[in-house]
Amino acid sequence: MTDNFTESQNLQAIPKNKIKLTLTYDGTNFHGWQVQKSGVVTVQSTLQDAIESVCGKRLPVTGCSRTDAGVHANEFVCHTDIINIPCEKLSVALNSHLPSSVAVKKAELVPDSFHARYSCAGKEYIYKIFNEKYRDPFLINRAMFYPRPLDANSLSFAAQAFCGRHDFRAFMSEGSKISDTVRTVKYCDISRFGDIVQIKIAADGFLYNMVRIIAGTIIAASEKGFSRDDISDIISSCQRKNAGPTAPACGLYLNKVFY
Amino acid sequence: MTDNFTESQNLQAIPKNKIKLTLTYDGTNFHGWQVQKSGVVTVQSTLQDAIESVCGKRLPVTGCSRTDAGVHANEFVCHTDIINIPCEKLSVALNSHLPSSVAVKKAELVPDSFHARYSCAGKEYIYKIFNEKYRDPFLINRAMFYPRPLDANSLSFAAQAFCGRHDFRAFMSEGSKISDTVRTVKYCDISRFGDIVQIKIAADGFLYNMVRIIAGTIIAASEKGFSRDDISDIISSCQRKNAGPTAPACGLYLNKVFY
Repeated sequence: MTDNFTESQNLQAIPKNKIKLTLTYDGTNFHGWQVQKSGVVTVQSTLQDAIESVCGKRLPVTGCSRTDAGVHANEFVCHTDIINIPCEKLSVALNSHLPSSVAVKKAELVPDSFHARYSCAGKEYIYKIFNEKYRDPFLINRAMFYPRPLDANSLSFAAQAFCGRHDFRAFMSEGSKISDTVRTVKYCDISRFGDIVQIKIAADGFLYNMVRIIAGTIIAASEKGFSRDDISDIISSCQRKNAGPTAPACGLYLNKVFY
Repeated sequence: MTDNFTESQNLQAIPKNKIKLTLTYDGTNFHGWQVQKSGVVTVQSTLQDAIESVCGKRLPVTGCSRTDAGVHANEFVCHTDIINIPCEKLSVALNSHLPSSVAVKKAELVPDSFHARYSCAGKEYIYKIFNEKYRDPFLINRAMFYPRPLDANSLSFAAQAFCGRHDFRAFMSEGSKISDTVRTVKYCDISRFGDIVQIKIAADGFLYNMVRIIAGTIIAASEKGFSRDDISDIISSCQRKNAGPTAPACGLYLNKVFY
Protein backbone atom coordinates (compact mmCIF):
# COMPACT_ATOMS: atom_id res chain seq x y z
CA MET A 1 0.00 0.00 0.00
CA THR A 2 1.36 3.44 -0.95
CA ASP A 3 0.00 6.63 0.52
CA ASN A 4 -1.84 9.20 -1.58
CA PHE A 5 1.09 11.60 -1.68
CA THR A 6 3.48 9.01 -3.19
CA GLU A 7 0.86 7.88 -5.65
CA SER A 8 0.10 11.33 -6.94
CA GLN A 9 3.85 12.02 -7.27
CA ASN A 10 4.25 8.83 -9.34
CA LEU A 11 1.30 9.74 -11.49
CA GLN A 12 2.74 13.17 -12.26
CA ALA A 13 6.07 11.60 -13.23
CA ILE A 14 4.43 9.49 -15.96
CA PRO A 15 3.99 11.32 -19.26
CA LYS A 16 0.37 11.88 -20.29
CA ASN A 17 -0.87 8.85 -22.19
CA LYS A 18 -3.71 6.36 -22.37
CA ILE A 19 -5.28 3.74 -20.16
CA LYS A 20 -5.74 0.22 -21.51
CA LEU A 21 -8.57 -1.70 -19.85
CA THR A 22 -8.89 -5.47 -20.10
CA LEU A 23 -12.45 -6.61 -19.48
CA THR A 24 -14.40 -9.83 -19.28
CA TYR A 25 -18.15 -9.93 -19.75
CA ASP A 26 -21.13 -12.21 -20.03
CA GLY A 27 -22.80 -10.80 -23.14
CA THR A 28 -26.21 -12.40 -22.53
CA ASN A 29 -28.01 -9.25 -21.46
CA PHE A 30 -26.09 -6.74 -23.57
CA HIS A 31 -26.90 -5.50 -27.05
CA GLY A 32 -23.28 -6.07 -27.99
CA TRP A 33 -20.28 -3.84 -27.29
CA GLN A 34 -21.00 -0.72 -29.33
CA VAL A 35 -23.13 2.22 -28.14
CA GLN A 36 -26.30 2.34 -30.24
CA LYS A 37 -28.50 5.25 -31.17
CA SER A 38 -31.56 3.49 -29.77
CA GLY A 39 -30.02 3.78 -26.30
CA VAL A 40 -30.20 0.04 -25.53
CA VAL A 41 -27.76 -1.29 -22.94
CA THR A 42 -24.37 -2.12 -24.42
CA VAL A 43 -21.06 -2.97 -22.76
CA GLN A 44 -19.52 0.28 -24.01
CA SER A 45 -22.34 2.43 -22.61
CA THR A 46 -22.21 0.53 -19.32
CA LEU A 47 -18.45 1.05 -19.02
CA GLN A 48 -18.79 4.75 -19.90
CA ASP A 49 -21.43 5.09 -17.17
CA ALA A 50 -19.04 3.48 -14.66
CA ILE A 51 -16.14 5.74 -15.71
CA GLU A 52 -18.42 8.77 -15.35
CA SER A 53 -19.41 7.63 -11.84
CA VAL A 54 -15.77 7.17 -10.87
CA CYS A 55 -14.11 10.25 -12.40
CA GLY A 56 -17.02 12.64 -12.79
CA LYS A 57 -16.86 13.05 -16.56
CA ARG A 58 -17.98 11.00 -19.55
CA LEU A 59 -14.93 9.82 -21.50
CA PRO A 60 -14.99 8.12 -24.87
CA VAL A 61 -13.91 4.46 -24.78
CA THR A 62 -12.57 2.69 -27.88
CA GLY A 63 -12.91 -1.10 -28.12
CA CYS A 64 -10.75 -3.66 -29.93
CA SER A 65 -13.79 -4.81 -31.94
CA ARG A 66 -17.56 -4.84 -31.95
CA THR A 67 -19.12 -7.90 -30.43
CA ASP A 68 -22.71 -8.76 -31.28
CA ALA A 69 -25.62 -9.09 -28.87
CA GLY A 70 -25.23 -12.22 -26.75
CA VAL A 71 -21.54 -12.71 -27.59
CA HIS A 72 -19.22 -13.07 -24.58
CA ALA A 73 -15.66 -11.99 -23.85
CA ASN A 74 -13.11 -13.75 -21.69
CA GLU A 75 -10.80 -10.93 -22.72
CA PHE A 76 -11.80 -7.67 -24.36
CA VAL A 77 -9.46 -4.70 -24.65
CA CYS A 78 -10.37 -1.04 -24.87
CA HIS A 79 -8.63 2.26 -24.26
CA THR A 80 -9.63 5.59 -22.87
CA ASP A 81 -8.03 8.88 -21.88
CA ILE A 82 -5.96 9.06 -18.75
CA ILE A 83 -7.98 9.28 -15.56
CA ASN A 84 -6.49 10.88 -12.46
CA ILE A 85 -6.69 7.68 -10.41
CA PRO A 86 -3.90 5.09 -10.04
CA CYS A 87 -4.56 2.03 -12.21
CA GLU A 88 -4.86 -0.44 -9.34
CA LYS A 89 -7.50 1.72 -7.66
CA LEU A 90 -9.22 2.36 -10.98
CA SER A 91 -9.95 -1.37 -11.50
CA VAL A 92 -11.45 -1.66 -8.02
CA ALA A 93 -13.46 1.54 -8.43
CA LEU A 94 -14.81 0.59 -11.86
CA ASN A 95 -15.71 -2.92 -10.69
CA SER A 96 -17.71 -1.47 -7.82
CA HIS A 97 -19.72 0.62 -10.33
CA LEU A 98 -20.13 -2.05 -13.01
CA PRO A 99 -22.89 -4.69 -12.99
CA SER A 100 -21.79 -8.22 -12.06
CA SER A 101 -21.91 -9.26 -15.74
CA VAL A 102 -18.81 -7.13 -16.52
CA ALA A 103 -15.46 -7.02 -14.74
CA VAL A 104 -12.29 -5.04 -15.30
CA LYS A 105 -9.44 -7.56 -15.01
CA LYS A 106 -6.64 -5.06 -15.52
CA ALA A 107 -6.07 -1.33 -15.98
CA GLU A 108 -2.66 -0.18 -17.19
CA LEU A 109 -0.99 2.94 -18.52
CA VAL A 110 0.06 2.61 -22.17
CA PRO A 111 1.86 4.94 -24.59
CA ASP A 112 -0.16 7.46 -26.61
CA SER A 113 0.52 5.39 -29.71
CA PHE A 114 -1.59 2.50 -28.35
CA HIS A 115 -4.98 2.05 -29.99
CA ALA A 116 -7.23 -0.84 -28.90
CA ARG A 117 -8.40 -1.46 -32.46
CA TYR A 118 -5.62 -0.30 -34.79
CA SER A 119 -2.75 -1.66 -32.69
CA CYS A 120 -4.41 -5.09 -32.54
CA ALA A 121 -2.32 -7.75 -34.34
CA GLY A 122 -4.89 -10.51 -34.09
CA LYS A 123 -7.61 -12.10 -32.00
CA GLU A 124 -8.51 -15.54 -30.73
CA TYR A 125 -12.11 -16.65 -30.41
CA ILE A 126 -13.55 -19.80 -28.95
CA TYR A 127 -16.90 -21.25 -29.94
CA LYS A 128 -18.49 -23.63 -27.42
CA ILE A 129 -20.92 -26.37 -28.44
CA PHE A 130 -22.66 -28.33 -25.68
CA ASN A 131 -22.85 -31.77 -27.25
CA GLU A 132 -25.13 -33.95 -25.15
CA LYS A 133 -28.58 -35.42 -25.49
CA TYR A 134 -30.27 -33.08 -23.04
CA ARG A 135 -29.64 -29.41 -22.35
CA ASP A 136 -27.39 -28.35 -19.49
CA PRO A 137 -29.08 -25.69 -17.31
CA PHE A 138 -25.64 -24.24 -16.49
CA LEU A 139 -24.85 -23.63 -20.16
CA ILE A 140 -28.02 -21.83 -21.24
CA ASN A 141 -26.86 -18.68 -23.10
CA ARG A 142 -23.26 -19.87 -22.61
CA ALA A 143 -22.91 -22.46 -25.38
CA MET A 144 -24.73 -23.67 -28.48
CA PHE A 145 -26.75 -26.80 -27.68
CA TYR A 146 -26.28 -29.53 -30.28
CA PRO A 147 -27.57 -32.97 -29.31
CA ARG A 148 -26.31 -35.15 -32.19
CA PRO A 149 -22.84 -36.73 -31.92
CA LEU A 150 -19.84 -34.66 -33.05
CA ASP A 151 -16.43 -36.25 -33.69
CA ALA A 152 -14.02 -33.50 -32.62
CA ASN A 153 -10.96 -35.27 -34.05
CA SER A 154 -12.26 -35.71 -37.59
CA LEU A 155 -13.80 -32.22 -37.59
CA SER A 156 -10.50 -30.73 -36.41
CA PHE A 157 -8.78 -32.40 -39.35
CA ALA A 158 -11.32 -30.99 -41.83
CA ALA A 159 -11.14 -27.54 -40.18
CA GLN A 160 -7.43 -27.25 -41.07
CA ALA A 161 -8.76 -26.06 -44.45
CA PHE A 162 -9.52 -22.72 -42.76
CA CYS A 163 -5.85 -22.14 -41.85
CA GLY A 164 -3.72 -19.82 -43.92
CA ARG A 165 -4.38 -16.75 -46.06
CA HIS A 166 -7.72 -16.94 -47.88
CA ASP A 167 -10.49 -14.76 -49.19
CA PHE A 168 -13.16 -15.50 -46.56
CA ARG A 169 -16.02 -13.77 -48.43
CA ALA A 170 -18.10 -16.98 -48.13
CA PHE A 171 -17.84 -16.59 -44.35
CA MET A 172 -19.13 -13.04 -44.04
CA SER A 173 -22.74 -12.13 -43.36
CA GLU A 174 -24.40 -10.38 -46.25
CA GLY A 175 -24.83 -6.67 -45.81
CA SER A 176 -21.28 -6.08 -44.60
CA LYS A 177 -19.63 -3.18 -46.45
CA ILE A 178 -16.05 -4.48 -46.16
CA SER A 179 -14.30 -4.87 -49.53
CA ASP A 180 -11.02 -6.52 -48.46
CA THR A 181 -12.14 -9.94 -47.35
CA VAL A 182 -8.73 -11.64 -47.25
CA ARG A 183 -7.68 -12.78 -43.77
CA THR A 184 -5.00 -15.08 -42.37
CA VAL A 185 -6.21 -17.77 -39.99
CA LYS A 186 -3.33 -18.85 -37.72
CA TYR A 187 -5.02 -21.92 -36.26
CA CYS A 188 -8.44 -23.53 -36.09
CA ASP A 189 -8.49 -26.41 -33.62
CA ILE A 190 -11.43 -28.42 -32.41
CA SER A 191 -11.23 -30.27 -29.11
CA ARG A 192 -13.63 -32.07 -26.82
CA PHE A 193 -13.65 -31.31 -23.08
CA GLY A 194 -16.25 -33.69 -21.66
CA ASP A 195 -19.62 -32.64 -23.11
CA ILE A 196 -18.19 -29.46 -24.66
CA VAL A 197 -16.82 -29.37 -28.21
CA GLN A 198 -14.73 -26.24 -28.50
CA ILE A 199 -13.51 -24.51 -31.65
CA LYS A 200 -10.47 -22.31 -31.04
CA ILE A 201 -9.56 -19.99 -33.90
CA ALA A 202 -7.07 -17.15 -34.25
CA ALA A 203 -6.60 -14.77 -37.16
CA ASP A 204 -5.14 -11.36 -37.96
CA GLY A 205 -8.72 -10.18 -38.32
CA PHE A 206 -12.25 -11.48 -38.71
CA LEU A 207 -15.09 -10.56 -41.05
CA TYR A 208 -18.60 -9.89 -39.76
CA ASN A 209 -19.96 -13.15 -38.24
CA MET A 210 -16.96 -15.09 -39.61
CA VAL A 211 -16.46 -17.32 -36.54
CA ARG A 212 -20.18 -18.05 -36.22
CA ILE A 213 -20.39 -19.02 -39.91
CA ILE A 214 -17.27 -21.19 -39.55
CA ALA A 215 -18.88 -22.87 -36.51
CA GLY A 216 -22.10 -23.42 -38.48
CA THR A 217 -20.06 -24.86 -41.36
CA ILE A 218 -18.21 -27.23 -39.02
CA ILE A 219 -21.56 -28.54 -37.75
CA ALA A 220 -22.79 -28.81 -41.36
CA ALA A 221 -19.56 -30.72 -42.10
CA SER A 222 -20.50 -33.23 -39.40
CA GLU A 223 -24.03 -33.61 -40.77
CA LYS A 224 -23.07 -33.84 -44.44
CA GLY A 225 -19.65 -35.49 -44.12
CA PHE A 226 -17.71 -32.56 -45.61
CA SER A 227 -14.01 -33.34 -46.03
CA ARG A 228 -11.14 -30.89 -45.71
CA ASP A 229 -11.24 -30.51 -49.51
CA ASP A 230 -14.98 -29.77 -49.43
CA ILE A 231 -14.31 -26.93 -46.97
CA SER A 232 -11.50 -25.65 -49.20
CA ASP A 233 -13.97 -25.61 -52.09
CA ILE A 234 -16.50 -23.63 -50.04
CA ILE A 235 -13.79 -21.06 -49.19
CA SER A 236 -12.71 -20.83 -52.86
CA SER A 237 -16.30 -20.34 -54.06
CA CYS A 238 -16.55 -17.00 -52.16
CA GLN A 239 -20.31 -17.68 -52.02
CA ARG A 240 -22.03 -17.22 -48.66
CA LYS A 241 -24.74 -19.71 -49.71
CA ASN A 242 -22.19 -22.55 -49.89
CA ALA A 243 -21.11 -22.16 -46.25
CA GLY A 244 -23.15 -23.40 -43.29
CA PRO A 245 -25.65 -21.38 -41.25
CA THR A 246 -24.58 -18.70 -38.76
CA ALA A 247 -24.29 -20.48 -35.40
CA PRO A 248 -25.96 -18.76 -32.41
CA ALA A 249 -24.23 -15.83 -30.68
CA CYS A 250 -24.33 -17.47 -27.22
CA GLY A 251 -21.54 -19.96 -28.08
CA LEU A 252 -19.03 -17.27 -29.08
CA TYR A 253 -16.33 -15.89 -26.76
CA LEU A 254 -13.64 -13.37 -27.66
CA ASN A 255 -10.80 -15.12 -25.84
CA LYS A 256 -7.55 -13.25 -26.47
CA VAL A 257 -6.52 -9.99 -28.12
CA PHE A 258 -2.97 -9.84 -29.43
CA TYR A 259 -0.89 -6.62 -29.61
CA MET B 1 -36.84 -46.14 -32.73
CA THR B 2 -39.66 -48.51 -31.81
CA ASP B 3 -43.19 -48.03 -33.03
CA ASN B 4 -46.03 -47.21 -30.67
CA PHE B 5 -47.46 -50.71 -30.75
CA THR B 6 -44.20 -52.35 -29.58
CA GLU B 7 -43.72 -49.70 -26.93
CA SER B 8 -47.15 -50.12 -25.43
CA GLN B 9 -46.73 -53.93 -25.42
CA ASN B 10 -43.43 -53.53 -23.52
CA LEU B 11 -45.01 -51.14 -21.08
CA GLN B 12 -47.82 -53.57 -20.31
CA ALA B 13 -45.30 -56.38 -19.71
CA ILE B 14 -43.53 -54.39 -16.96
CA PRO B 15 -45.11 -54.76 -13.51
CA LYS B 16 -46.55 -51.56 -12.02
CA ASN B 17 -43.83 -49.68 -10.19
CA LYS B 18 -42.21 -46.28 -9.86
CA ILE B 19 -40.36 -43.85 -12.06
CA LYS B 20 -36.98 -42.53 -10.94
CA LEU B 21 -36.10 -39.16 -12.43
CA THR B 22 -32.55 -37.80 -12.44
CA LEU B 23 -32.51 -34.02 -12.78
CA THR B 24 -29.98 -31.23 -13.02
CA TYR B 25 -30.86 -27.66 -12.18
CA ASP B 26 -29.46 -24.19 -11.78
CA GLY B 27 -30.97 -23.24 -8.42
CA THR B 28 -30.42 -19.48 -8.78
CA ASN B 29 -34.03 -18.55 -9.43
CA PHE B 30 -35.70 -21.27 -7.34
CA HIS B 31 -36.74 -21.10 -3.71
CA GLY B 32 -35.13 -24.49 -3.19
CA TRP B 33 -36.51 -27.93 -4.03
CA GLN B 34 -39.47 -28.28 -1.69
CA VAL B 35 -42.99 -26.98 -2.44
CA GLN B 36 -43.77 -24.15 -0.01
CA LYS B 37 -47.06 -22.93 1.36
CA SER B 38 -46.35 -19.40 0.15
CA GLY B 39 -46.57 -20.67 -3.43
CA VAL B 40 -43.10 -19.40 -4.45
CA VAL B 41 -41.44 -21.16 -7.38
CA THR B 42 -39.56 -24.28 -6.32
CA VAL B 43 -38.01 -27.07 -8.38
CA GLN B 44 -40.57 -29.55 -7.05
CA SER B 45 -43.55 -27.36 -7.98
CA THR B 46 -42.01 -26.68 -11.40
CA LEU B 47 -41.52 -30.40 -12.03
CA GLN B 48 -45.06 -31.20 -10.87
CA ASP B 49 -46.37 -28.56 -13.28
CA ALA B 50 -44.43 -30.19 -16.14
CA ILE B 51 -45.70 -33.67 -15.22
CA GLU B 52 -49.26 -32.32 -15.12
CA SER B 53 -48.80 -30.79 -18.57
CA VAL B 54 -47.45 -34.06 -19.95
CA CYS B 55 -49.79 -36.62 -18.38
CA GLY B 56 -52.84 -34.54 -17.51
CA LYS B 57 -52.78 -35.12 -13.75
CA ARG B 58 -50.85 -33.70 -10.82
CA LEU B 59 -48.69 -36.44 -9.28
CA PRO B 60 -46.72 -36.18 -6.07
CA VAL B 61 -42.94 -36.17 -6.55
CA THR B 62 -40.56 -37.19 -3.75
CA GLY B 63 -37.03 -35.83 -3.77
CA CYS B 64 -33.81 -37.29 -2.36
CA SER B 65 -33.34 -34.23 -0.16
CA ARG B 66 -34.33 -30.61 0.23
CA THR B 67 -31.99 -28.15 -1.34
CA ASP B 68 -32.05 -24.53 -0.19
CA ALA B 69 -32.78 -21.46 -2.29
CA GLY B 70 -29.92 -20.78 -4.69
CA VAL B 71 -28.33 -24.25 -4.27
CA HIS B 72 -27.66 -26.13 -7.52
CA ALA B 73 -27.80 -29.78 -8.53
CA ASN B 74 -25.62 -31.54 -11.05
CA GLU B 75 -27.58 -34.64 -10.07
CA PHE B 76 -30.81 -34.73 -8.07
CA VAL B 77 -32.98 -37.83 -7.82
CA CYS B 78 -36.71 -38.00 -7.24
CA HIS B 79 -39.45 -40.56 -7.76
CA THR B 80 -43.06 -40.43 -8.80
CA ASP B 81 -45.87 -42.80 -9.71
CA ILE B 82 -45.77 -44.58 -13.02
CA ILE B 83 -46.85 -42.45 -15.96
CA ASN B 84 -48.28 -44.09 -19.05
CA ILE B 85 -45.48 -42.84 -21.31
CA PRO B 86 -42.29 -44.76 -22.15
CA CYS B 87 -39.33 -43.44 -20.15
CA GLU B 88 -37.34 -42.23 -23.17
CA LYS B 89 -40.28 -40.18 -24.39
CA LEU B 90 -41.05 -38.97 -20.87
CA SER B 91 -37.63 -37.28 -20.56
CA VAL B 92 -38.12 -35.48 -23.86
CA ALA B 93 -41.70 -34.49 -23.01
CA LEU B 94 -40.80 -33.19 -19.55
CA ASN B 95 -37.81 -31.26 -20.88
CA SER B 96 -40.03 -29.54 -23.41
CA HIS B 97 -42.32 -28.39 -20.57
CA LEU B 98 -39.62 -27.45 -18.06
CA PRO B 99 -37.86 -24.07 -18.00
CA SER B 100 -34.28 -24.06 -19.30
CA SER B 101 -32.95 -23.94 -15.72
CA VAL B 102 -34.05 -27.57 -15.11
CA ALA B 103 -33.41 -30.66 -17.21
CA VAL B 104 -34.39 -34.30 -16.81
CA LYS B 105 -31.22 -36.28 -17.59
CA LYS B 106 -32.79 -39.70 -17.19
CA ALA B 107 -36.15 -41.34 -16.51
CA GLU B 108 -36.19 -45.02 -15.58
CA LEU B 109 -38.58 -47.60 -14.21
CA VAL B 110 -37.62 -48.79 -10.73
CA PRO B 111 -39.10 -51.37 -8.32
CA ASP B 112 -41.86 -50.31 -5.91
CA SER B 113 -39.37 -50.61 -3.07
CA PHE B 114 -37.34 -47.67 -4.42
CA HIS B 115 -37.66 -44.44 -2.47
CA ALA B 116 -35.64 -41.38 -3.56
CA ARG B 117 -35.00 -40.35 0.05
CA TYR B 118 -35.12 -43.52 2.17
CA SER B 119 -33.22 -45.73 -0.31
CA CYS B 120 -30.42 -43.17 -0.54
CA ALA B 121 -27.12 -44.54 0.82
CA GLY B 122 -25.22 -41.29 0.62
CA LYS B 123 -24.65 -38.08 -1.29
CA GLU B 124 -21.74 -36.15 -2.69
CA TYR B 125 -21.69 -32.36 -2.72
CA ILE B 126 -19.22 -29.99 -4.26
CA TYR B 127 -18.66 -26.46 -3.06
CA LYS B 128 -17.07 -24.06 -5.56
CA ILE B 129 -15.01 -21.05 -4.52
CA PHE B 130 -13.89 -18.63 -7.22
CA ASN B 131 -10.49 -17.58 -5.92
CA GLU B 132 -9.24 -14.63 -7.95
CA LYS B 133 -8.74 -10.94 -7.37
CA TYR B 134 -11.71 -9.79 -9.46
CA ARG B 135 -15.10 -11.38 -9.92
CA ASP B 136 -15.79 -13.62 -12.91
CA PRO B 137 -19.02 -12.59 -14.69
CA PHE B 138 -19.54 -16.22 -15.73
CA LEU B 139 -19.55 -17.44 -12.12
CA ILE B 140 -22.02 -14.97 -10.61
CA ASN B 141 -24.53 -17.12 -8.64
CA ARG B 142 -22.45 -20.19 -9.56
CA ALA B 143 -19.60 -20.01 -7.05
CA MET B 144 -18.63 -18.16 -3.88
CA PHE B 145 -16.28 -15.29 -4.72
CA TYR B 146 -13.27 -15.17 -2.40
CA PRO B 147 -10.42 -12.88 -3.51
CA ARG B 148 -7.72 -13.70 -0.91
CA PRO B 149 -5.27 -16.56 -1.66
CA LEU B 150 -6.32 -20.10 -0.68
CA ASP B 151 -3.81 -22.96 -0.53
CA ALA B 152 -5.87 -25.96 -1.62
CA ASN B 153 -3.21 -28.50 -0.64
CA SER B 154 -2.78 -27.41 2.96
CA LEU B 155 -6.54 -26.90 3.38
CA SER B 156 -7.18 -30.39 1.99
CA PHE B 157 -4.81 -31.80 4.62
CA ALA B 158 -6.61 -29.95 7.43
CA ALA B 159 -10.02 -30.97 6.04
CA GLN B 160 -9.19 -34.65 6.55
CA ALA B 161 -10.35 -33.99 10.13
CA PHE B 162 -13.93 -34.09 8.80
CA CYS B 163 -13.57 -37.69 7.56
CA GLY B 164 -15.00 -40.53 9.56
CA ARG B 165 -17.89 -40.93 11.99
CA HIS B 166 -18.44 -37.83 14.12
CA ASP B 167 -21.15 -35.88 15.87
CA PHE B 168 -21.45 -32.92 13.48
CA ARG B 169 -23.68 -30.81 15.76
CA ALA B 170 -21.21 -27.90 15.44
CA PHE B 171 -21.89 -27.97 11.69
CA MET B 172 -25.69 -27.70 11.78
CA SER B 173 -27.61 -24.46 11.53
CA GLU B 174 -29.45 -23.58 14.71
CA GLY B 175 -33.17 -24.18 14.60
CA SER B 176 -32.89 -27.67 13.07
CA LYS B 177 -35.03 -30.20 14.94
CA ILE B 178 -32.82 -33.23 14.21
CA SER B 179 -31.61 -35.06 17.35
CA ASP B 180 -29.25 -37.65 15.83
CA THR B 181 -26.40 -35.52 14.58
CA VAL B 182 -23.86 -38.30 14.01
CA ARG B 183 -22.85 -38.73 10.37
CA THR B 184 -20.05 -40.53 8.52
CA VAL B 185 -18.05 -38.43 6.07
CA LYS B 186 -16.45 -40.69 3.45
CA TYR B 187 -14.13 -38.11 1.93
CA CYS B 188 -13.54 -34.37 2.02
CA ASP B 189 -11.05 -33.33 -0.65
CA ILE B 190 -10.06 -29.85 -1.70
CA SER B 191 -8.56 -29.27 -5.14
CA ARG B 192 -7.74 -26.28 -7.30
CA PHE B 193 -8.84 -26.18 -10.95
CA GLY B 194 -7.41 -22.93 -12.29
CA ASP B 195 -9.20 -20.14 -10.44
CA ILE B 196 -11.68 -22.50 -8.78
CA VAL B 197 -11.04 -24.10 -5.40
CA GLN B 198 -13.44 -27.01 -5.08
CA ILE B 199 -14.43 -28.89 -1.94
CA LYS B 200 -15.78 -32.38 -2.69
CA ILE B 201 -17.44 -34.12 0.22
CA ALA B 202 -19.44 -37.33 0.52
CA ALA B 203 -21.31 -38.69 3.54
CA ASP B 204 -24.08 -41.10 4.44
CA GLY B 205 -26.16 -38.03 5.23
CA PHE B 206 -25.83 -34.33 5.90
CA LEU B 207 -27.25 -32.04 8.58
CA TYR B 208 -28.97 -28.76 7.72
CA ASN B 209 -26.39 -26.44 6.09
CA MET B 210 -23.58 -28.86 7.00
CA VAL B 211 -21.62 -28.49 3.75
CA ARG B 212 -21.98 -24.70 3.74
CA ILE B 213 -20.72 -24.49 7.35
CA ILE B 214 -17.84 -26.85 6.52
CA ALA B 215 -16.98 -24.59 3.54
CA GLY B 216 -17.14 -21.52 5.79
CA THR B 217 -14.90 -23.28 8.32
CA ILE B 218 -12.37 -24.20 5.63
CA ILE B 219 -12.17 -20.53 4.62
CA ALA B 220 -11.87 -19.56 8.29
CA ALA B 221 -9.09 -22.17 8.55
CA SER B 222 -7.23 -20.36 5.78
CA GLU B 223 -7.69 -16.98 7.47
CA LYS B 224 -6.83 -18.11 11.01
CA GLY B 225 -4.34 -20.89 10.22
CA PHE B 226 -6.48 -23.69 11.72
CA SER B 227 -4.68 -27.04 11.69
CA ARG B 228 -6.25 -30.45 11.26
CA ASP B 229 -6.26 -30.75 15.08
CA ASP B 230 -8.01 -27.39 15.42
CA ILE B 231 -10.79 -28.63 13.13
CA SER B 232 -11.03 -31.86 15.16
CA ASP B 233 -11.43 -29.73 18.29
CA ILE B 234 -14.23 -27.72 16.64
CA ILE B 235 -16.02 -30.96 15.73
CA SER B 236 -15.59 -32.35 19.29
CA SER B 237 -16.92 -29.14 20.85
CA CYS B 238 -20.36 -29.69 19.27
CA GLN B 239 -20.77 -25.89 19.46
CA ARG B 240 -22.01 -24.12 16.35
CA LYS B 241 -20.27 -20.91 17.46
CA ASN B 242 -16.84 -22.57 17.16
CA ALA B 243 -17.29 -23.44 13.47
CA GLY B 244 -16.96 -20.90 10.65
CA PRO B 245 -19.78 -18.92 9.04
CA THR B 246 -22.30 -20.51 6.67
CA ALA B 247 -20.85 -20.04 3.17
CA PRO B 248 -23.27 -18.69 0.51
CA ALA B 249 -25.77 -21.03 -1.17
CA CYS B 250 -24.58 -20.20 -4.70
CA GLY B 251 -21.36 -22.24 -4.33
CA LEU B 252 -23.14 -25.48 -3.40
CA TYR B 253 -23.95 -28.27 -5.85
CA LEU B 254 -25.54 -31.61 -5.06
CA ASN B 255 -23.26 -33.69 -7.28
CA LYS B 256 -24.10 -37.38 -6.84
CA VAL B 257 -26.77 -39.42 -5.09
CA PHE B 258 -25.79 -42.97 -4.13
CA TYR B 259 -28.27 -45.89 -3.93
